[in-house]
Parts: sequence; C-alpha cells; structure tokens
Amino acid sequence: MSSGSGDVQRPVTLGIDVGGTKVLGLAVDASGAVLADLRVPTPGTRGAQGPERAREQLLEATATVATQLAARVGPPSHSSPLRVGVGVPGLVDDAGVLRFAPNLPVGTGLDMASLLSERLGGSPVVVDNDATCATVGEWAYGAAAGTSDVLMVTLGTGIGGGIVTGGRMVRGTNGFAGEIGHMVVNPAGPVCPCGRRGCWERYASGSGLGRLARDAAHAGHLSAVVSLAEGDPEAVRGEHVTQAALAGDADARAVLEELGWWLALGLANLAKILDPDTIVVGGGLVGAVRLVLQHVRQAFDEMMEGCRQRPEVKILLATLGDRAGAIGAALVARGGNRYEAGTPRTR
Amino acid sequence: MSSGSGDVQRPVTLGIDVGGTKVLGLAVDASGAVLADLRVPTPGTRGAQGPERAREQLLEATATVATQLAARVGPPSHSSPLRVGVGVPGLVDDAGVLRFAPNLPVGTGLDMASLLSERLGGSPVVVDNDATCATVGEWAYGAAAGTSDVLMVTLGTGIGGGIVTGGRMVRGTNGFAGEIGHMVVNPAGPVCPCGRRGCWERYASGSGLGRLARDAAHAGHLSAVVSLAEGDPEAVRGEHVTQAALAGDADARAVLEELGWWLALGLANLAKILDPDTIVVGGGLVGAVRLVLQHVRQAFDEMMEGCRQRPEVKILLATLGDRAGAIGAALVARGGNRYEAGTPRTR
Repeated sequence: MSSGSGDVQRPVTLGIDVGGTKVLGLAVDASGAVLADLRVPTPGTRGAQGPERAREQLLEATATVATQLAARVGPPSHSSPLRVGVGVPGLVDDAGVLRFAPNLPVGTGLDMASLLSERLGGSPVVVDNDATCATVGEWAYGAAAGTSDVLMVTLGTGIGGGIVTGGRMVRGTNGFAGEIGHMVVNPAGPVCPCGRRGCWERYASGSGLGRLARDAAHAGHLSAVVSLAEGDPEAVRGEHVTQAALAGDADARAVLEELGWWLALGLANLAKILDPDTIVVGGGLVGAVRLVLQHVRQAFDEMMEGCRQRPEVKILLATLGDRAGAIGAALVARGGNRYEAGTPRTR
Repeated sequence: MSSGSGDVQRPVTLGIDVGGTKVLGLAVDASGAVLADLRVPTPGTRGAQGPERAREQLLEATATVATQLAARVGPPSHSSPLRVGVGVPGLVDDAGVLRFAPNLPVGTGLDMASLLSERLGGSPVVVDNDATCATVGEWAYGAAAGTSDVLMVTLGTGIGGGIVTGGRMVRGTNGFAGEIGHMVVNPAGPVCPCGRRGCWERYASGSGLGRLARDAAHAGHLSAVVSLAEGDPEAVRGEHVTQAALAGDADARAVLEELGWWLALGLANLAKILDPDTIVVGGGLVGAVRLVLQHVRQAFDEMMEGCRQRPEVKILLATLGDRAGAIGAALVARGGNRYEAGTPRTR
C-alpha cells in the first residue's frame, strides 16, 4: 500500500468517509482546503442481492467517488499517484481490513485497503476508523487545532471516539483504541446491541436520546414530542426531541438535559483517565448538545470536583461538521503532517 | 532540577516510594538491579504537631533515605550528582509539586522536587505519581517488559493507574492521566470520598472489598470472615476476606469473586478505550486477586465479547511486588531509557 520513499508526494490527497447512509469524498490540499467534494448514497447496506454483490457495490461506489474526485483535481500520474484515505465505521486493523462493522454489516471482514487500491490502479490507500479520522480532522483544522491532548467524541447512532495524547494519536496494540461508547456506566442498565448492559452509548448517543425519550413518553410525558412522532410513543426518535426543544418545549428540554448529564458522566470518566486539554463533541447529535451545553459543562465540573485540583478542561463543539471524517481521512492518507507526529504510516 | 546536557550520568539512580505508611528507597543500577534498599515508616501523617512540622518531617525522612542510600553506593560527586526519583500517592504537576494527595494529606501543595533537591545539595530530583512510577517499573523490568501498550492497575486502598500507548507513558496535559479509580461505573452506587457515587474503586480496591464484605456480613453471610474480625461485622476488612478464602471458606471466595467481577468490568472499560496488549494488576490486593484470577479472566472476556474481534488481552499480575514504585522512580530519575521513549525529562 505504501509507495517508495523516493516517491514525490502530491500536495492534494483524497479523503472518503464511508458512512451507513452516505459516502462523502473530498479532495484536500496541503493547507486543509477542500478543492472538490462528492457525495453519493451508500449502496445496498445489508445485501439483499447477497453479501458478495453488496460488498462489490460498496467498493465500487467508494472507488467511483475517488476516481471522479481525482479527475476533477488533475490527471493521474504513475510517478506520483493520488493518495487516498478512507474512514469507515468499525474496527480497522493495521493492514486496512475492516474487522467489525456493526453499522456497515457488509463491510465486516472486508480487506478494503487492498481491494480499493486494486480498483484505483495501485494508488496507495489507507483505511482507518471514521472517528479516528474525524479526530485527526478536528485536531488539524477544527476545534482542537493547536492542542496536544485531545479527546474527540462523535455522537451519532452510537458513540465513537478518538484520543490524542502528548501530540500523538492513541491507536492501541491492534489499532482499536477509542471504543469509548461501550464503556459500561451502569451494569444494571438497558441492554446494548453489543450484548452488555448499560454501555455509555445507551444514554448519550442519538439512539440513547430516543430511548430516554420513549421511556418518558411511555410514562405519559413529552406530549409535544409524541405529536411530532404522529402520536405513537414507540415511534419517538432523538430528532423529535431536538425539534421540540428548539421550539421551546420544556419536557423535551428536560430529556436533553438528561442526555447531557449522561454525556457529562462519560466525559468526566474519560477526562480522569486521559487528562485532556480539550474535549471536542461532534457527530450528528451536535445540534442537540448545543442546546444543553451549559448543562453539560456544569454537570462535568461537578463530576470532576474533589478528584483533582486542575485547570478547567475545555469542552468544545466540533467545527468541521460532517466533513471532519473525510478531511481527516485525507490527512491520514498523507501520513506524517500532524498525524502520528510526523511518522508516515505505511499500512 | 535538570542538569546540563554535558552532565555525565552516573549509572546508579535512587528511587523512593513515599507511601501512606512507609518510605521505601532503592539504589538501582542501569540494568535495573537493586544495589541497596532502605525502608522507614512514613512520619506523622496528619500533623498532630501542625502541618508545617509534619511536612518538614516528611521531607526530612525522604531526604534521609536518599542520603543514606547514596552513602552506601559511593561518595557524592559535584560533577555528577546522584539523580533521585520520588513516587508519591497523588497528583503531581510538571514542576514536581504535589497538587492533591488524599492518602498523604500533609503532602498536598508541597513543592517536593524543589525542597528535596535543596536538602540534597542540589541533586536533580524528579517527583511523579506513585502508580506512574510502578507502571514504569513493571514496564521496564516486570510483567509488561517488552510490550508497548500497557495498562497498569494498582489495587490498594484505592485504585491507581498508569497507561503506556505506542511505547510512551500517557501523561495528559497536566500530568494527571491515569486517575482510573474514579471512573464512575454505577451512578447509583455507594458514595466515594471524592464526593461522587459509584466510582470503580468503591468496588475493586481494598476498601471496596471491605465494603462488599461488610454488606454481606450485615446480611448474615460470611460467618467465618466475621469471626476473624472478632465477631463484629462492621470490623470486617479486605484482609479478613482474603485470609478466610485462602483457608477455603466458600462465602469469602464468593465475595472475592464479586470483587473480581467489578475488577473485570473496569478493566474491560479501559481495554475498550485504550486497546492495550497487556494489563498488569499490582498493589496490595494482588494476593486476593490471584485467588480469583480465572474468574476475572472469564468475566473480562465475556464483557469484551461482541464489541470487537481481536486477540486476547493479556491480564498479568505484577512481578516486582511492592518494589515496583521505587524501581520505577529510579528509572524516572534517569530520564530517557524506556521512559518517554528516550526523551529526557527535565522537570
């Protein structure tokens, strides 16, 4: 996957964020500026036509995004092929194989790096976890720029994470570090798809928000939110809560504050373990978190009090929006830069 | 505190572990061999004669241990003063000031590095957290030798921790990383001295074991253990449980298994976050953990199952015993070596 050390790197790399619903590709120059972007729906997710065909379609869609972006930023060159970084929702090993992808089931076991590189005429392809990529993006050009101890938390359907300490990404022995959503915070809590009870993401993610809201709705609260779900408490989702809270509904806001309390609890746990300078909260739930950020801040400070005497940990919202992962993937493709403190990655 | 770069380092350094009950000093050579050791009781802990006097006594005892060890390994030299590393139970900032020391109350706020260096004729003194030092020791010469992603957990009255990722100690932005004992694992759990509820160390430490046992004793179980505590359920401590379990008491063993389950829960949380190759369990509770290590292993594997497909995380008991902290402190004093991947520390 890596090119020789005599290779002249092109200043533009491609970053592709493969999500459960969309594939977003960006061409990014050495300053982090986005030169071109392309977004397509993620093809056939669970493989109605069989898993082999679904895998083919996933690879094909990703390769097509890369090829079309490449065409827009200049002709291909054999002496200096365009480098491609890909972020995927799951555990990726050092060889670029997607080992486990509950939110992209057809991807589990897929040797994405090799197969994409083949489809792209041998261009170097680096595959990494999407939350890791988002962390790299926010660290390089977003909310955490200029810091060296960062915790990034992406709140979507689940919770993803990326950790930077002492100016380096924490990868772990298998490259699986940052699986923070399955930290158990309540062993008697609700069952998680992972099989355990009381994982953090049962409380502080989009699906967690939906669950908290449905519990409140079944208990007879949240009438405004239930109306948005066409009167069916079981149909209540996180978006309905955020929508009602934005419109000023106090019950909806109370549920968001409950989410915020659980968010603070997990963040405080992680801050005690990692002692970050800055925590960046990103992902699709950022709009909801913004509404209760003061509440999160206050709960976090109370949870940290007494355990230490230390400067305040900054809690910031991500600034790159849904582009963080693709921008980070483009940086990961570059190797070096601020990623891994200058050590080029050669998977 | 640091000497100039032209300074010739002596091959022997001193490591001193200042605990709540004893001060243990070791002279350690470049191969990790212990050349001399000295152990004295920690003087007047809470300062009956006033905090100033108690601080003086603490510094004096530590300095005396250093001076006596130094005399035993050779005459002092002005061109190459003996380097001293000190491990203390609490949060130590980058300047070597003990910021918060609940288990060594007179130490809170003490500028140990400067004051000890003064007392030692200007010898370079590095002060660091005791669990960090123990981690460095076990990483260099103990159970985690040869690995680059280590989680060390020290189980004593509370729980301390040290983290190595990618071959480097994780320090955090203030040097406070590794405060794993106050990770909340049950927000409705028992109150912790830190003010929160359900911190991990309420379950998986020596004091946690005592609490689990007293709960069982008050519920009418644990008659053998209560006998060891002279018939008073409220007097039951962790040591009684271990003693009874060693003698084959099934009830005592059941309490140890409960401790083991909570230990596994916290270890699994940390393994998901950090993806270590090796977990090392040390501290005064190791004897108790040894009795239920298979139970811990099994519970840990169940907790990790479904979240990832990955090689087994090694769970090992510490091998340096109560010397790990002092050996690590001697290494910390050396700077470089395997600590911080060769970067000399100059606090």
